[in-house]
Amino acid sequence: AQIALEQDYEAQRELDTRYRLLMDFTSDAVALVSATTGTIVDLNHNAASLFGTARAELLETPFAERFTGRRRGELLSALSSPLAVDSPSPIEVELKASQRQLLLSSKLFRAAGEQLIFVRLSDPELGSVADGKLV
Amino acid sequence: AQIALEQDYEAQRELDTRYRLLMDFTSDAVALVSATTGTIVDLNHNAASLFGTARAELLETPFAERFTGRRRGELLSALSSPLAVDSPSPIEVELKASQRQLLLSSKLFRAAGEQLIFVRLSDPELGSVADGKLV
Repeated sequence: AQIALEQDYEAQRELDTRYRLLMDFTSDAVALVSATTGTIVDLNHNAASLFGTARAELLETPFAERFTGRRRGELLSALSSPLAVDSPSPIEVELKASQRQLLLSSKLFRAAGEQLIFVRLSDPELGSVADGKLV
Repeated sequence: AQIALEQDYEAQRELDTRYRLLMDFTSDAVALVSATTGTIVDLNHNAASLFGTARAELLETPFAERFTGRRRGELLSALSSPLAVDSPSPIEVELKASQRQLLLSSKLFRAAGEQLIFVRLSDPELGSVADGKLV
């Protein structure tokens, strides 16, 4: 049983490492948002750069607060609507930090009984916010 | 102990879900390669599309085989050199499937005692291979 526990621990650590590295390896700006509370559960450095705030200060804060003229409930339901899951049509937003226009693409999923939303922030003209080039 | 095991299992399932969804949510073409054997451990659909082959058929096959004029050892060491870890300068390659020129950016890491390399395939001109637009 001890060996099984250690193997579980190792496997979990590996998945954790893969997930964390992939978040910062991708050239996209990505945030993970709780569908229940609307707060930022995780985000990568590209996303934090767009928001103009240190990553640690953004965790557990409402995602909708980063955009102008967006009420929290309205943005959340747009991001988590079943429609957005099947045929995601990006949502137009304006960053509070820079008045820059962005598109949000989202994917709702359930993990460990919690509903989470992956959100990708992209540039309407360039298609993606790559590697600090546009950040 | 039973409860702790179940919690571990739930936590592991959640990280697994996050990792898997992020792989296909990113607009990048990404592969995960074993630094020891040079085979593809995982890849997303954008990467499989570039290689012109179904994802399942690419798993466990040598990564270097997807490119012209690249010996397996040579490509692997270029992708996993300590230099590439600190200041990653992308490697120019040509896809065997389409003769298309691409850049490979990489990140070497160790997880559960295994050395793995995340590889991002990007377009030299466009900076990233976004959402099926270029695939």
